[in-house]
Amino acid sequence: MKIIIVGANGCIGSAVARALAADHEIIRVGRTHGDVHADYTDAESVAAMFEQIGPVDACIATVGPDGVLKPYADLTDDDYRFGFERKVLSQVRLVTLGTPHLRDNGCFVLSSGSLSDRPKPTSVATGPMDAAIDVYVQSVAPLLPRGIRINIVSPAHVAAPGGPTPPGSITADAAAAAYLDALTSPNTGQVLRVWNGGPNA
Amino acid sequence: MKIIIVGANGCIGSAVARALAADHEIIRVGRTHGDVHADYTDAESVAAMFEQIGPVDACIATVGPDGVLKPYADLTDDDYRFGFERKVLSQVRLVTLGTPHLRDNGCFVLSSGSLSDRPKPTSVATGPMDAAIDVYVQSVAPLLPRGIRINIVSPAHVAAPGGPTPPGSITADAAAAAYLDALTSPNTGQVLRVWNGGPNA
Repeated sequence: MKIIIVGANGCIGSAVARALAADHEIIRVGRTHGDVHADYTDAESVAAMFEQIGPVDACIATVGPDGVLKPYADLTDDDYRFGFERKVLSQVRLVTLGTPHLRDNGCFVLSSGSLSDRPKPTSVATGPMDAAIDVYVQSVAPLLPRGIRINIVSPAHVAAPGGPTPPGSITADAAAAAYLDALTSPNTGQVLRVWNGGPNA
Repeated sequence: MKIIIVGANGCIGSAVARALAADHEIIRVGRTHGDVHADYTDAESVAAMFEQIGPVDACIATVGPDGVLKPYADLTDDDYRFGFERKVLSQVRLVTLGTPHLRDNGCFVLSSGSLSDRPKPTSVATGPMDAAIDVYVQSVAPLLPRGIRINIVSPAHVAAPGGPTPPGSITADAAAAAYLDALTSPNTGQVLRVWNGGPNA
């Protein structure tokens, strides 16, 4: 398969790319690194990316922690908007703009995070966006054309490579396994939760 | 108790007001109707509302269906933003601005909706916002000061008063019962789901 990985330079993205590279043609996309440069939060940049790459079988977004983590009392309206624009709307737009470029029976894999279900005192503006993009995937899955599937991985915090994996954290390889599962299973509209103790963790 | 009901003129809001009026002092708030006029999507208007009313024991937001319902193919970025700004950020701001005006052990009750878990082909931009505000309530509950609680009611579609209650719909009185439960129970951070077949439906 020809597979785009958006955020391929990140901790999870590079683990996903490593796991897929032997058997597939991988297009690594990053804002400043990779085979193709694009800013996934910018509609024009994303549209240009799909035009440049041409038809693909899958598009995986490993866009990582993309919200504001700070004490509740310090949060402003724009902190909530930041997470919405990046974690929610930018991934929605990736699907909207990418669908015409996906081959029949292609697949999107998006990213959320465990803060939707395991909040921290600093995640009040971030966990809600994880929940929103999970529900977007569940809502849009039956509406995509030509057998195109969409799933989402909700990873716990990923421990820094080479160090210990503290309670509540997972390894990048454990997260990557869930992206491969989301990519290759016949399911659509699924949220794959990779939390400590879970089957993928 | 002295209780603000934001959206008191709506279908659910008026049922909640009726149910509470015998035993409590109700301040009905609406954009153009009610005891106090305020636009709950406008920060300055909400701040002025709390200043005008003074200390209260509870603030209930019955802000109703507040997202864009239309076919997936017709959705624009601004349709997603509309639901986010109203259903999510406006209710977040009601809590932020209202907390200093709530008495010790006061209570917020917010509103989401069943489209988070029972999506329709027209709810792709709306159901995600219901999920986001549910998770906001779960995230912020342990962080509110002075024993202040916060719960949220997630109603199914409310049938028009006086008519039949089609499958999947509930009556306004069934929804109102959940708001009273959310207001008076000792719990905090709870999502009260009022869906057909459920205990409150």
